[in-house]
Amino acid sequence: MEPLDYHAEERSKASFDVEEMKIVWAGSRHAFEISDRAARLVASDPVFRKDNRTMLSRKELFKDTLRKTAHAVKRTIELNLSEEETHTLWFYVDQPAYANLHWGMFIPAIEGQGTEEQKQKWLPMAHNMQIIGCYAQTELGHGSNVQGLETTATFDPQTDEFVIHSPTLTSSKWWPGGLGKVSTHAVVYARLRTDGQDYGVHGFIVQLRSLDDHSPLPGITVGDIGMKFGSGAYNSMDNGLLRFDHVRIPRNQMLMRLSQVTREGKYVQSDVPRQLVYGTMVYVRQIIVSEASCALSRAVCIATRYSAVRRQFGSENGGPETQVINYKTQQSRLFPLLASAYAFRFVGEWMKWLYTDVSKRLQVNDFSTLPEVHACAAGLKSITTSATADAIEECRKLCGGHGYLSCSGLPELFAVYIPNCTYEGDNIVMLLQVARFLMKTISRLVSGKMPVGTAAYLGRVEHLMQCHCEVQRAEDWLKHSIILEAFEARSARMSVACAESLSRFSTPEEGFGEISADLVEAAVAHCQLIIVSKFIEKLQQDIPGKGVKTQLENLCNVYALSLLHKHLGDFVSTGCITPKQGALANEQLRSLYSQVRPNAIALVDAFNHTDHYLGSVLGCYDGNVYQKLYEEAWKSPLNDTVVPDGYDEYIRPLLKQNFRTARL
Amino acid sequence: MEPLDYHAEERSKASFDVEEMKIVWAGSRHAFEISDRAARLVASDPVFRKDNRTMLSRKELFKDTLRKTAHAVKRTIELNLSEEETHTLWFYVDQPAYANLHWGMFIPAIEGQGTEEQKQKWLPMAHNMQIIGCYAQTELGHGSNVQGLETTATFDPQTDEFVIHSPTLTSSKWWPGGLGKVSTHAVVYARLRTDGQDYGVHGFIVQLRSLDDHSPLPGITVGDIGMKFGSGAYNSMDNGLLRFDHVRIPRNQMLMRLSQVTREGKYVQSDVPRQLVYGTMVYVRQIIVSEASCALSRAVCIATRYSAVRRQFGSENGGPETQVINYKTQQSRLFPLLASAYAFRFVGEWMKWLYTDVSKRLQVNDFSTLPEVHACAAGLKSITTSATADAIEECRKLCGGHGYLSCSGLPELFAVYIPNCTYEGDNIVMLLQVARFLMKTISRLVSGKMPVGTAAYLGRVEHLMQCHCEVQRAEDWLKHSIILEAFEARSARMSVACAESLSRFSTPEEGFGEISADLVEAAVAHCQLIIVSKFIEKLQQDIPGKGVKTQLENLCNVYALSLLHKHLGDFVSTGCITPKQGALANEQLRSLYSQVRPNAIALVDAFNHTDHYLGSVLGCYDGNVYQKLYEEAWKSPLNDTVVPDGYDEYIRPLLKQNFRTARL
Repeated sequence: MEPLDYHAEERSKASFDVEEMKIVWAGSRHAFEISDRAARLVASDPVFRKDNRTMLSRKELFKDTLRKTAHAVKRTIELNLSEEETHTLWFYVDQPAYANLHWGMFIPAIEGQGTEEQKQKWLPMAHNMQIIGCYAQTELGHGSNVQGLETTATFDPQTDEFVIHSPTLTSSKWWPGGLGKVSTHAVVYARLRTDGQDYGVHGFIVQLRSLDDHSPLPGITVGDIGMKFGSGAYNSMDNGLLRFDHVRIPRNQMLMRLSQVTREGKYVQSDVPRQLVYGTMVYVRQIIVSEASCALSRAVCIATRYSAVRRQFGSENGGPETQVINYKTQQSRLFPLLASAYAFRFVGEWMKWLYTDVSKRLQVNDFSTLPEVHACAAGLKSITTSATADAIEECRKLCGGHGYLSCSGLPELFAVYIPNCTYEGDNIVMLLQVARFLMKTISRLVSGKMPVGTAAYLGRVEHLMQCHCEVQRAEDWLKHSIILEAFEARSARMSVACAESLSRFSTPEEGFGEISADLVEAAVAHCQLIIVSKFIEKLQQDIPGKGVKTQLENLCNVYALSLLHKHLGDFVSTGCITPKQGALANEQLRSLYSQVRPNAIALVDAFNHTDHYLGSVLGCYDGNVYQKLYEEAWKSPLNDTVVPDGYDEYIRPLLKQNFRTARL
Repeated sequence: MEPLDYHAEERSKASFDVEEMKIVWAGSRHAFEISDRAARLVASDPVFRKDNRTMLSRKELFKDTLRKTAHAVKRTIELNLSEEETHTLWFYVDQPAYANLHWGMFIPAIEGQGTEEQKQKWLPMAHNMQIIGCYAQTELGHGSNVQGLETTATFDPQTDEFVIHSPTLTSSKWWPGGLGKVSTHAVVYARLRTDGQDYGVHGFIVQLRSLDDHSPLPGITVGDIGMKFGSGAYNSMDNGLLRFDHVRIPRNQMLMRLSQVTREGKYVQSDVPRQLVYGTMVYVRQIIVSEASCALSRAVCIATRYSAVRRQFGSENGGPETQVINYKTQQSRLFPLLASAYAFRFVGEWMKWLYTDVSKRLQVNDFSTLPEVHACAAGLKSITTSATADAIEECRKLCGGHGYLSCSGLPELFAVYIPNCTYEGDNIVMLLQVARFLMKTISRLVSGKMPVGTAAYLGRVEHLMQCHCEVQRAEDWLKHSIILEAFEARSARMSVACAESLSRFSTPEEGFGEISADLVEAAVAHCQLIIVSKFIEKLQQDIPGKGVKTQLENLCNVYALSLLHKHLGDFVSTGCITPKQGALANEQLRSLYSQVRPNAIALVDAFNHTDHYLGSVLGCYDGNVYQKLYEEAWKSPLNDTVVPDGYDEYIRPLLKQNFRTARL
C-alpha cells in the first residue's frame, strides 16, 4: 500500500532539490548523516516517547526524565557513540534534564577554571557520571548582576578550608538546573573572603549529597524551586534552591586556574588572561543561536504543514475551500519566520567560525577582536532568541484554535524555549552591552581607530550618513548591495544619533541611562544587519543542487525586506530610504511570497525533522491531521470514564436541585 | 504590629488620590463596591484557593472546577446575590468552567434565537441548572467559516423530527466548553435540510446525556478533546468533541425565532430582522474588551510591583542596588502597558454605551449605524486582545527569571488569556472585516455618503490627506488636538492608499486578497485611533479626586505617543509627521515616563486587585516577594521526599557504574 501523504501534491510542486537543501541546512553531509541517524534512533525507541508528556504529573514527569537520561547514557555506551553522536542523541531526546547541565556547564566550568591537578581529579569522575554536577551561580536576589552575588566563601587558615555560607535569604542559590534533586556536586559561585578582604566572586566545587544514599550533607539545604511555565516543558528539570550553613570544603576545591588562595590565605592572581572567559561565552552563545534556528524551524514546520492542510472560506460552487497558506495575511506572517529560520541557521554556522577564530587569537594573546566578537555574540544571542520566542507563539496563532491544543506541540515548544531569552544573559542587558560597544566604536572613530569584523561598516560612517538608496523599481530591492547599504546606513545613523544624544548629557552614564531605550533600538538595528549580511555572504558561496540557491536567494530577500517593512520607521525617519522606496520594498515582498508559496512545504521538509522531534499532530509529515487529532483526543485523562469523577458530588446535586445531600 | 509593606515608600510618593482612582477604574462607586465585596468574598473562602492549581493533574483540576462551580452556585443562593453580584463572583472565582458557557452562551442563544414558547419551556430549567447546556458550533474542520459547518439536521416529515448527523470526521463538533464531560444539553448548529434543500446553518437544542445517570444518549459520542496550553489555565474546562449518529429530536427543538420549519417541512422565514444577531455580537465583544483590561491590569500590576522590589546593578559604595523600575528600558516597556490597561478600560466602558445605543436603534429597525458599530466592535476585540496577550508575556519577561515560575501567576494568566485572540472571531479575520468596512466607507465618500461614529473622521479625508502636524517642541505633543489629528491622518492615509491599490486590480476581490496584509495594517491604525480618541473623550469628562485627572492625562499621552513610536513608519512614511517630530514625540515620552514613575505603584493599586485574584507571589500587595518565593518552593511535589522517586532505578546505577542491575 502506498503510504498516505496529504502533502504529496505540495511536495511535487517544489522547484528545488530537497535532499540537497537538507545538506545545506545541516551544514555538511557529515552533519546531516549524524543528525539523521540520531533522530531516527531516538524516534524509534519507545523509552523516548514524549506524546504523553503534558499529561504527566510533576513527579511522573521528573521520573520519566530520570529514566530517559539513564537510558540515553546506556544507549550511548552500548552503541559506542562518538562525542558528536552522543551530543546529537541528547539533543533529539528533547527533554530538559540534569544531564544537560552536568555536561554543558559543570564539566566545562572545571575544564575552563580548574588547574591541571583539579581537572585530573574531578573530570574523570564527572565524565563517568560517578558524580553529577550542576552550576550554582544565580541566587534568589541576583541573576544578571553576577558581581552582586551574596554567598560567601571565607577562608579559614586554621583548618585550610573555605567556609561556604548563605548569609541572607536572597543569597539562596536559585534556578540551577539539576540542583534540586539530582546533583551530588556543584560549582558554587561565592564571594571569596580571605586575608580580611572581599575578592569578589569565584567558583568552588562543593559536594551536596552523600554518594551512598543521596541525602544532603550536613549544612546543606537543597530542594526543587517548584512548577514552571507550561505543562511538560521545563518541569522535567529539577531547577533547584540551595542554602549553606557554614559548609566547609578543602582549600583545593576552589577553582584555581585564574587565581589562587595560598595555604597562608594570600590571594594570588595567575598570569592566565582573564579574557579567556569570553571565549567560553562566545561558545555558549553560538550554541544558543544554533538552537534558536532549531526551535524556530520546528515551529515553522508545524505551522507551514498545517496551513497547507487547513482550509477555510473561499469555496466556489461547493468545491474545496482555500488552503489557509494561500492567504496573503497568512503568508506575510509565516514566510518571514520561515526565512528567519534559515537566516538564524546560517548566522549560527558563521558563529562557529567566529568562535574558532577568537579562540586561536586568545591562545596567542591577541585580544584585538574580542570587544567586537563579544558584542556580536551577545547581540545575536539576544535578537535570535527574542525573535524565536515570539515566532513560536506566532506560529501557534497561525494554527488557529487547534494550535492551542497541547498535541499541536506548540504550547510546550514555547514554554520550553522562552527561558533562552533570560538565561546566559538577559536579552535587554545583552543589547545594552552591544550599544555600549557601538558608542565606544563611534567615539573612537575620531581618533582614527578603525572598527573590525561586523562593525567594520562603521568605518565608512561618513558615506553611510549621506548615501541615498538607489531603488527606483520594486525589483531593485533584490540587489544585495542595495539591501546591505540600506541596513548599514540605518544602523550607522541610529548609532550616530544616539552618540549625539549622549553628548548632550552632563555625564555619559547619565545619558546612557536616559536614552537606553533608543540605544536598545540601535543595537537591534546593528544585529539585524549582521544577520542579513551573513545570509548574503552565505549566498556568495558555491551551493550545489538544483534550484537550491534560488530558494535561498528568495528567503534572504524575504528576511531582509520583511525586517525593513517591520522597522520602516527606522529606515524612513533616518532618511535611508524614502516612503516610496518603502512601498516598493513591500510590493517586492508580496511578489517574493508568491515565489516561496509553491516551495513552502519542501522548504520545511528540508529541516529533516522526524515526527517524533516535531511532537505535533498538526505538523506530522503525512498531513493526516484530523484523524490524528481525533485519536489524540481520546487519550485525554478525562476520557478514562464516561461519567467524570466528581459527578456524584458536584454535578448531580445541582441538576437535582439538591444542595443538602451534596458535599459542596 | 504594623502590617509589613515593602511598598510603603512607593505608596507615599503618589501624587493623586488612589481611592478616587479606584472608582474611576471600576466605572462607578456602585461598580466598585460590588466588585470589591465579591473579590473579598472569593479571596476569603478556602474552597476558592487556586495557589495549587498548576500542580494538579488534569483529573484533579477538573474535579476542583466542579467543586468550585457547585460551591459558587450554593454561595450565590445562600447569600441571595443579585445577578450583577453573581456575575462578579464568578468572575473572581477565576477558573474557566462549564458554567461560563451555560450562562454566557447556551442561555443567551435560547434567549436570542428561541420563540416565546421555547423560552418558556427551556429557560426556567436552564436558570435552575436542572439542565446544563453548551454552545456547539465549531467543528474539527470549521471555525471561522460558520457557513461551512458540516453537521446536518434533516427534517423527517414522517415522524416530525430532525435527524442530527455528523457525516464526516471533520464535522465532529470540537472545542465547545462544557461539552466534554458536563453538559446535558447543547445548542447545536447544523445545516438545515428539508424539502429537498439545504437552508444553511441553524441552531437546535439537543439533549446529550441522560438526566438520570449522565450517560450519553444513544447515537451520541461525546468526550474531552485533551490537554491545552499551559498547566492549570483552560485545562479546568472540558472543551469537548461531539458526534451524532442519526440522532432524532422533535421539530420544536429547532430554535425558531428567525425561521421555522412547518409540520409539512416547509422552510419559512419570520419577519424578525436578522440584524439582531449583530447586537449580541457587539455585547459579547464589549465584554471581551473589558476583560482584556482586567487581564492586562493584572499582568501590569504584577510586573510593576515586582519591578519596584527587584534591584539589580547600580549599587554605589555598597548601598542598595537600583530598583529595576528605575531603568528607562524597563519603563519604556512597562509604562505603555500600564497606559494600555487604562485605555482598554475606558474604551470598554464606552462600548457599553455603544451596545445600548445600537440595541435601541435595532428595536426601531434603525440599521444605519450597524456597519460602523460592527466594524468597531470587531476591530476593538481584535486589537485589545492581541495587545493584551503580547503584554502579558512582556510583563512576564519584565519579571526576569522568576517570571517563569508558575507562582509568578503570569504563565497561567498567559495560557488562559490567549484563546481570546481566536474565539469569538479570529483576530486577523476581524481586522479584515474592519478593512472591508473602511474600503466601503471610502468608496462611498464620492457619492457624498458621510460616515458616522468612529468613522466620521473619514468625512474630513480631504483635509486629513494634506494636513501638516504642527509640533515644533516636544511639549506640543501633549495637545490632544495634535495627537488626534496625527492618528486620524495616519489612519485616513493608510486607508486611502489601500483603496488606491485596490483600484489597480482587475477585480476588487483579487485586490483585496493580494493586499490583505496592508489592509490589516490600515485596520489596526483605525482601531488604535478609536482607542486614543475615546481616552481623550474620557478626559473631557469631569473626573474628581486630587491629581486623578493629571495621572490619566499622562497615561493617555503615554498610550498615544508610545503607539506613535512603535508605528513610526506609518506616521512618517505617510507624511503625517516629520522624522524630527517623531523624535520630539519620543523625547516627550521619556519625560512622561519620569512623571509616571513615582505614581506607578499607586496606579496599579487603583485596580484594587486582591492577592487572591492576582495569584502571584511577585505581585503581592505587601511586596514581601523573596520570603514568599522561598515558602512557595517547598510546596513543589518533588520536595515531598528528600531523595526523589526514581533514585534507586535511574540515578544510583549511573553513579555506581552499575548498568546491569538497573531497570533502565
